[in-house]
Order: sequence, then C-alpha cells, then structure tokens
Amino acid sequence: MAVYTDVPDDELRQFVGEYDIGEVVSCKGIAEGVENSNYLLRTETGTFILTLYEKRVDPGDLPFFIGLMEHLADAGIACPTPVHGSDGIALRNLCGRPAAIVTFLNGMWPRRIKPFHCAALGGALAALHRASASFTMGRANTLSLAGWRGLFEACRDRADAVSPGLADELADEIDALAASWPLALPSGVIHADLFPDNVFFRGEQVSGLIDFYFACTDFFAYDVAICLNAWCFEADFSFNITKARLLLSSYRAARPLSETELAALPLLTRGSALRFLLTRLYDQLNQTPGAMVRPKDPLEYLHKLRFHRSVAGPSAYGLN
Amino acid sequence: MAVYTDVPDDELRQFVGEYDIGEVVSCKGIAEGVENSNYLLRTETGTFILTLYEKRVDPGDLPFFIGLMEHLADAGIACPTPVHGSDGIALRNLCGRPAAIVTFLNGMWPRRIKPFHCAALGGALAALHRASASFTMGRANTLSLAGWRGLFEACRDRADAVSPGLADELADEIDALAASWPLALPSGVIHADLFPDNVFFRGEQVSGLIDFYFACTDFFAYDVAICLNAWCFEADFSFNITKARLLLSSYRAARPLSETELAALPLLTRGSALRFLLTRLYDQLNQTPGAMVRPKDPLEYLHKLRFHRSVAGPSAYGLN
Repeated sequence: MAVYTDVPDDELRQFVGEYDIGEVVSCKGIAEGVENSNYLLRTETGTFILTLYEKRVDPGDLPFFIGLMEHLADAGIACPTPVHGSDGIALRNLCGRPAAIVTFLNGMWPRRIKPFHCAALGGALAALHRASASFTMGRANTLSLAGWRGLFEACRDRADAVSPGLADELADEIDALAASWPLALPSGVIHADLFPDNVFFRGEQVSGLIDFYFACTDFFAYDVAICLNAWCFEADFSFNITKARLLLSSYRAARPLSETELAALPLLTRGSALRFLLTRLYDQLNQTPGAMVRPKDPLEYLHKLRFHRSVAGPSAYGLN
Repeated sequence: MAVYTDVPDDELRQFVGEYDIGEVVSCKGIAEGVENSNYLLRTETGTFILTLYEKRVDPGDLPFFIGLMEHLADAGIACPTPVHGSDGIALRNLCGRPAAIVTFLNGMWPRRIKPFHCAALGGALAALHRASASFTMGRANTLSLAGWRGLFEACRDRADAVSPGLADELADEIDALAASWPLALPSGVIHADLFPDNVFFRGEQVSGLIDFYFACTDFFAYDVAICLNAWCFEADFSFNITKARLLLSSYRAARPLSETELAALPLLTRGSALRFLLTRLYDQLNQTPGAMVRPKDPLEYLHKLRFHRSVAGPSAYGLN
C-alpha cells in the first residue's frame, strides 16, 4: 500500500487539462504499488491510473519503462498503456514529481493461488517475452549477481539478528552462485517482479500485467525462475510441483525452453530467491519510521532458497 | 488512509453475487476513511464503494448509519446510498466483518480551502440538517460533553508530555464547558465529522457528502461549530473570518439560526475544538505499532480552542 503524495485538486485539474481526456470527475489514491503513488482517475471520457514516481524510481529509467509499456501494448500484451498529452508527451510533471497517466486494466489479482492461475501465468509470461524480444531499449538488472554483494554487505553486520547464521549462509550462497551463474542464455527485457499482485485475472484468464518498474534486460529463464518462487510455494513454504508443472508447460507451449535453459533452472531459482531475500532483508533493516509500508518477511525467501539448493535437478520443477 | 482487510477474490465474487449489480470487474483498496476498509468496486453495471466495518465501528450502530444514508439520499442529499442485495438486505458480512456496498459519488475533496468552498459547504450543511430532521432514529453523541471527561482521564497523566501545562488547561476547559454547555438547542441528526475530506466538490458546487460514521443526535449548531473549526482556520492557525461569514450566511439562508443558537456559537466552537483535541491526543498516546495511519496533531486544536476562548462574542465569526 502506498500513496505518498497528496495531489491538490487545482494542480490535478491543470495537469489533466494537458491531455485530451476530458475533465477530472474523481481521483482516489489506491493501495497498489509500493514504489510509487497511484491514483484511480476518472475523467469525463474514461478511467485511468495516474502514477507519480517517487524517489525510489530513477527518473533516468522512466523513458525505458514508458517505452516498454507502449511497445508491449502495441504488440497486444494487456498492460497499462501510457496516455499522451495533447502535445504528444506521455511523461510529465505533477507536484514536483515525474508523472504519467496510463490506461486502466480490469481484473483482480489473486489472493489465493490455484493451479489454473499458474497455467494462465505461464502463457502470459511467454507472450510477454516474445513481445519484448523486439523492444530495442535495454536496462541493466542492478538486482542480479552484480548487485547482490553490495546489498549483502549493507546487511551483513545485522543479518544474524534477523536469523542466526544468516550472514554466513548468504556469503556462501553468493560465492556459490558467482562461481556457477550462467554466462549466456536467451535474453531480452524481463518483467523481473511478476508477483501475484502484478497479474490481474478475470475468471481463469489473465486480463492484465502491471508494474513494469523493475523491468530490465536479463535471461528470460530468470523471469520464469522468479515466477516459480512467487507462485508455486504454499504458505507453509512447501513447493507445489503441480503448479510449477502447469506454469512451465504453458510457458513452453508458447516459448520453448532450450535444454541449457532448463538445466539452469535450479541455479536461477536460487538466484531469484536470494535476490528477494536480500532486498527484503535490506528493507527490514532500513525501515523509515512512519513509512506506510509493511515490510515483507525476508525469511520466506530463505526457506525457498534452501529448497532450491536441495533439488537434484530441473525435474524437481515438474518437467516431463 | 486505511485498508485493513485484504479481501480474497473468490470471497468477493461470492459476496457481490448476492447483489443484482453484475460481476466484479475490479476492486481496489482506496486511501479514504480512517475507521474502515474502503474499496472502489467496479462491476459490469457500475462503480460502487465497498466498505468493511473494522473494529472501531460498533456493529450495533450500523443500522442507524445505513438507515440515515438511505433517508438522506431519499431526501435528495448527495450522499452514498446503500445498495440492497437480491434479498433486500443492505448490511451483510464479508471476511468476518459487517460490510455494505454504497453508490459511488463523483467529485474531489478540496486540499486547499478557498472562500467559495465555505459558501457551498454552508448551504450543503443546512440542507443536510433540514433532511435529517425527519429521520426517526437517534444515536447519542458519545464524543460530546458526557464523553470528554473519560477521554481526558485516559490521557491526563501523559498530556503534559505532549505540551507542558496541557493537563491543567484541559481540566479547566472541561469544567468551564460543563458549567455553561447549552441544555437545549434545536437538535437532530448531525454529521459531526464534516471535515474537507468528507465533502466532494465538482467545480464550485458540493457534489457529495460522505463518511456518516460519526453521525449522532446533537445540536444542529454544534455541527456548524465543527465546520467553523475544520474549514475556517488557515495553516498558521489564524481564523479566516471571510470564510466563516460565507459559511454562516449560506447556512442561514437555507436554515435560519435562532438568536439562542447564534449566542451559543463561541461555546459550541470551544466544545468542538476540545472534542477533536481530546480524540487526537488519545490517538497519539495510544498508537498501535504498525497501524498504517499517521496520527493527526492534537495541538492544532489547542490553538483553535484558545482562539474561541478569546472571542468577545458570535460577531467574531463574521455575523452581520
């Protein structure tokens, strides 16, 4: 949940006046997105999402994010489409922050993941990767191998206070991953944060993918690994191989995974688990008093990391 | 800002299925209302607000609140109208909480109060009082004179830590108000919390009044006093007599205030300032760690209280 900026009504009216979408009818801060302020904006012509980019998003990255959403929407992916102002510009300023209006997507994100969600997700993720492959801009993944050591060092001294022995376990894990991380796999722009709250469903179909603000250039199979972690574990941290099988088989039906990609899955799921463990650990150790965001539990991802370290090979993920 | 309960999508679908409003299209928690969880609900037939009543609202009061909104809407007041289920029932249960769906109101609440807002507010408040006069249910105001001493006693020991001398000042104020509080003035159901965030505008007109969950039976002029406090002070705590004059004159044009009511205004504004001072003080001293609500400053109302104590009479509010 996050609404950081309260937009005065007269500034909002002036801002919306720069678009051809009619007058503002209502505007309500919504509990969606953690990094930015999001508003459900209704005008005389329709419903939109207004996003104000807060300080955790680098303004230099915004043309990449806006360009990506436009590219994906043009390619038929159900994702927010930036709305251009009367002057043709999509990225503007409001209340001293970069701001954009994007289209509103119907659907709800699933609170309880059922197997059919994972089946539909696999297809949607593969379609996303097929569409992003033709996007020409790029953005380095600062939260992959190159970024882990820095995050870890910022947490190292206090990690054992969160869980005894955590600092040593993380140091060993980073060394192990650094020694064996794939050098080359099919790559392109990945979503990199496709958790359930970023995937809308209507019935059993995916109706929209949102929140592209971690999107970056990386292995497509790493995006698959992120989804295996985010969608295929139960609340008790047990791995649900049925969900994983459905996710992978529907992904492969739309975008085949090579033998090399499949063989790398146990390593990529470990890396992805480590990435979320580290950022959650960092956020927990560096909470701002008064920030209206409840930190997520880093240890959830320690359980997931240990599971992936224990598997014998990619067949653990339900591959046939 | 407050969304306390995360509603699973399947429970929501089942709940909305009990109404004749079509299927759920989307549902987003919104940053509105402090006491309850509110969602902007879109279905195949329209847009609504879904409210889950959290523990600060007494379930025994809900039939009064729901009945009041129905009565006011029938009388032509622009306020949320409860939607009845297929079985005729408006107050239902969702996620173990009382819940209701009400109509959605267009408009935005003003962040910067201008004189025209106060003029429009006065007329809307008078129309509300004229409409509520024929409502037959009642609810005692637990946050008036009878409730202040209890609130104060719960804060007394720690009040001076918030502001030196505050405990004595509050004790004296309660004694003074108890000795002179009006025994009888024209009464009926008042809103009792008509702050700017509960009043929607489109252009210079009031388009809706919301959040009736403090409504109670009390003096109509006390509701006027609450609005004088909430709308007619500047950020530097100076009293804006132009705004007060506009508020009062447009109120009186629609519902005349008797000489007795006018004479009571300095006392009623003091009482209203004390009420918000005490509840804010209590909330500040009793914050729940992790509650996603930023406490409001009690001392804002200490400044207002002192202003009203200093006035020579009702002419201080711009009465002609």
